[in-house]
Amino acid sequence: MKVSTAVATPSPRSLRSRDKLMHTAERLYAEHGFANVSIRMIREAAGQRNKSAVQYHFSTRDELIQAILARHAAEIDRLRAPMVAELESSGEVSRRDRITCVIAPSIEHHIELGTPSWYGRFLAQAIVEPSLRDFTTEASVSTPSFQRLEQLRPPRGQERDPGLFERYASMTRLLIVHMCAELEGDLATGRVDPAAAERSWRELGETLVTAVCGLSSALLDQEGDPAAG
Amino acid sequence: MKVSTAVATPSPRSLRSRDKLMHTAERLYAEHGFANVSIRMIREAAGQRNKSAVQYHFSTRDELIQAILARHAAEIDRLRAPMVAELESSGEVSRRDRITCVIAPSIEHHIELGTPSWYGRFLAQAIVEPSLRDFTTEASVSTPSFQRLEQLRPPRGQERDPGLFERYASMTRLLIVHMCAELEGDLATGRVDPAAAERSWRELGETLVTAVCGLSSALLDQEGDPAAG
Repeated sequence: MKVSTAVATPSPRSLRSRDKLMHTAERLYAEHGFANVSIRMIREAAGQRNKSAVQYHFSTRDELIQAILARHAAEIDRLRAPMVAELESSGEVSRRDRITCVIAPSIEHHIELGTPSWYGRFLAQAIVEPSLRDFTTEASVSTPSFQRLEQLRPPRGQERDPGLFERYASMTRLLIVHMCAELEGDLATGRVDPAAAERSWRELGETLVTAVCGLSSALLDQEGDPAAG
Repeated sequence: MKVSTAVATPSPRSLRSRDKLMHTAERLYAEHGFANVSIRMIREAAGQRNKSAVQYHFSTRDELIQAILARHAAEIDRLRAPMVAELESSGEVSRRDRITCVIAPSIEHHIELGTPSWYGRFLAQAIVEPSLRDFTTEASVSTPSFQRLEQLRPPRGQERDPGLFERYASMTRLLIVHMCAELEGDLATGRVDPAAAERSWRELGETLVTAVCGLSSALLDQEGDPAAG
C-alpha cells in the first residue's frame, strides 16, 4: 500500500502526529536496535490509537527510517552551508579545512540535539543495514553544501589504484558515524558526564579531524601530490 | 527458559543441527539484516521441523549470535597464534608489524571462508547492536593471541588525554569490521569479481594496515614517543 502524503497540505495535527512518530521511532531504534522494535511498538509508544498511523504517514518501515535520515541530513546541510561559503571566499583551502567542513557540521548538530540524543545510534544502524546503506550515504553526500564542498577539492591526478579514494571516503564516513554513535551512547548511559557533553563533542570532532587527516595522508599522498586527499 | 547444552555430550546429529542453525542464521542475518529475520525463519530455512530447536540449542537469539561470534573469534585466534609467535621470537617489533598482526588474521579468515561468505556483514551488524556491542568486541580482544600481541606493545608513557588511546582502538576496530563487511557485500553481489576474491582481500588488508598506521601516527605520536601506537 502506497499512500502519498503530498497530495494535499496536511493539517497541523497530522504533521504533529508524523513528527511524534519519527521521534519515537528514532529513540526506540537507537535504544533497542532495529531488530527489536516493531511498527506496533512505535505506534503505541507514540500514543497513537489509530492502528494504521505509521502506514498512513510512511507506507513502510524503510520510508519511515528514510524520512528521519533526510530530516537530519537537511539540518546538517543548514549548518554546513555557511562554513562552505567561508571556505569558498577564502583564498587557500587546506586539506584540514575541507576535512573540518565534513566533520564539524555533524558535531554541531549533535550538540544542538542535546543529551540524551538518539540520532547517532540510529544512523550507525541504518548505515549497516543492507536495505538502507546506500540511501543513508546518499542522503548525506547529495546535500547542496556537501556537493559545493566537493568542488573545493583539487582535481585528483592519475591514480595507481582508482578504488583507493573510494575506500578512503568509506573509511571517513565509518569513523564519523560510528564514533559519534559511541559518544552518544556513552553520554546517554552516563559513562561520559552529560554536563560535559558540549566539550566532549568538540573534542571528538578534533580527534576525528586529526584521524581523517592521518588517514588521508597515509592513503592518498603520493610523490608530488600531497594535497590530493 | 535456560536449557544448558553442556550437561551431556551431544550426539553427532545434535551437533550437526546446531551447526546448521548457526550457518543459516549467519547467512540470513547478513543478507536481510538482524531486524528482518525471525527465529522461525532461521529454523525453517535450516530445515528444522522441531519448533523449539533454536531455543533448545541456544536459549535466546542473543546466545545464538554470541555462539556464532565466538566460533569465528576462535578461528581467527588460530590464524593469529603463529604470527604472534614469530613476532615474539624476532628481535624488533615495529608498529607496522603489530598492526599487521591485528589485521592479517581477519583477512586470512575471510579468504578461508570463500565467496560468498556472510561473517563480515553479520559482524558489522552485531557490533552496532546495543545489546551485543560489548560482547562482540570482547570476543575478539580476549582471545589468547590478541592478549599476547598486546604484551608486545611498548609501555605507553604519560598521556595528555588517556581517552585518546581508547578512541584509536575503537577506530581501528571500526575500520576493520566495516571495511571487511563492505568488500564481502561487494563480492556477494558481484560488484567486485569473485574470481579476484583472494587478491581483493589481500589488497584490502594492505590498505587497512596503511590506514591504521596513519591513524596511529596522527593520533598517538608525541614528541619523543613515535612508537607508542
